[in-house]
Amino acid sequence: MSESESSGVRSVQRAVELLALYDAEHPSRTVRELMDATGLAKTTVVRLVHTLEQCGLLWSRGDGRTVPGPALLRWAELARSTWQLPEAALALLAGLSQASGGEAVHLYVRQQRARVCIARQEGTRTLRHVVLVGAEMPLWSGAASHVLLSRADQADIAAIARQAPHENWARTLAERARAAALTGWSVSHGEREEGVSGVAAPVFGRDGQVLAALALGGPTARFTETVVAGFGALLVDSARKLTALDCIGGAG
Amino acid sequence: MSESESSGVRSVQRAVELLALYDAEHPSRTVRELMDATGLAKTTVVRLVHTLEQCGLLWSRGDGRTVPGPALLRWAELARSTWQLPEAALALLAGLSQASGGEAVHLYVRQQRARVCIARQEGTRTLRHVVLVGAEMPLWSGAASHVLLSRADQADIAAIARQAPHENWARTLAERARAAALTGWSVSHGEREEGVSGVAAPVFGRDGQVLAALALGGPTARFTETVVAGFGALLVDSARKLTALDCIGGAG
Repeated sequence: MSESESSGVRSVQRAVELLALYDAEHPSRTVRELMDATGLAKTTVVRLVHTLEQCGLLWSRGDGRTVPGPALLRWAELARSTWQLPEAALALLAGLSQASGGEAVHLYVRQQRARVCIARQEGTRTLRHVVLVGAEMPLWSGAASHVLLSRADQADIAAIARQAPHENWARTLAERARAAALTGWSVSHGEREEGVSGVAAPVFGRDGQVLAALALGGPTARFTETVVAGFGALLVDSARKLTALDCIGGAG
Repeated sequence: MSESESSGVRSVQRAVELLALYDAEHPSRTVRELMDATGLAKTTVVRLVHTLEQCGLLWSRGDGRTVPGPALLRWAELARSTWQLPEAALALLAGLSQASGGEAVHLYVRQQRARVCIARQEGTRTLRHVVLVGAEMPLWSGAASHVLLSRADQADIAAIARQAPHENWARTLAERARAAALTGWSVSHGEREEGVSGVAAPVFGRDGQVLAALALGGPTARFTETVVAGFGALLVDSARKLTALDCIGGAG
């Protein structure tokens, strides 16, 4: 890549990083806040904000603060049209949560070296596992990750494991991914967060590739060995039905 | 701006343009289609697609086609949190549509040299005006544009008028914008599309700036002089209530 090309790639990445700084806790931002959060120079931030404003992705509220722009509404429609699951699939998620006794159900796809929640059924227990649609979770941890990585090669797994705060995590992650491939589902206890457990099974694409991981999540205290075995069977069954629906990521 | 800086800005704009090529009619795209639609060279398109994939904004489906990526789901949440109107405002839009005899209601904000629909109440008539949330409409035409431009200066209006397919449109547009400022609302008949009429009134921000245009739209045949006068009064009243709700574009 030429210098100007790589600078173009970097600008797109930075623009996306800037947008990612807006969330429910930070619905509006000042240039100073964006500088502090990114470590970028003021001229760079101002230029990026100006470009994003021109694209409608940021909006000047007039009080020195910018908010996510109205052009995002169009992208929201786009995201919905591609990723919104059909009623039958959502009913499956709801049924799974009910069959599990009210645990939370999440559906994840791999996104580079992370996994993104693309659908969910909120749990009904007082203590429940909550991951919002669109949220990114690390791919080095959790039953859903084992499943998403069940056909990944060593180099891929090693690169992901380097993000983990553990020594020699590549071997552990590779073992768990292989075990997931062998048994058809996986379980994790407190891999990322103490006291949080998950069980997951793969949803396949038309070419047999692992397209998504369907997961039940909740407190470790409720995820006993017997319960987990039951969840595994439930998940494999539901994931098979989701595979048959062929409805993930704009299929078709 | 240095060459590398302007190349960065251009890359962000191009990336956004590429994403804009995905819509309900084109839920997936090949590199060839993106090249044809943009006129960009293959290497440029491939580089941008790759960058967008890394950001999760595009997703390879595995059959040579890309779809909008799962990262857009997060932005969809963001757009909703900033732009979703509260129940009271939506009820106002619904009430306005009902009071108009079932015409469509749209709320627009200015987005550079366009206007974007940020909320709507679908009409109930068989022949109805339909603009989806997130859709961009030209700012050189329509009653909503007159209202949004009612305090714009001559240079601004002239630049916008240059996008119109009419000769000397700047004068006409300036007159209609000025009239909108004087009377507090505006009407248009077939400015953009033969047979389509609109009536609009301004929603103001805290500093008295024109923040949005509230509009009724439908077929010209139903928008007679008497009807339009009634719609004008209805819109001014509803727009005043929306102003009081102070709820547009992440206010507060």
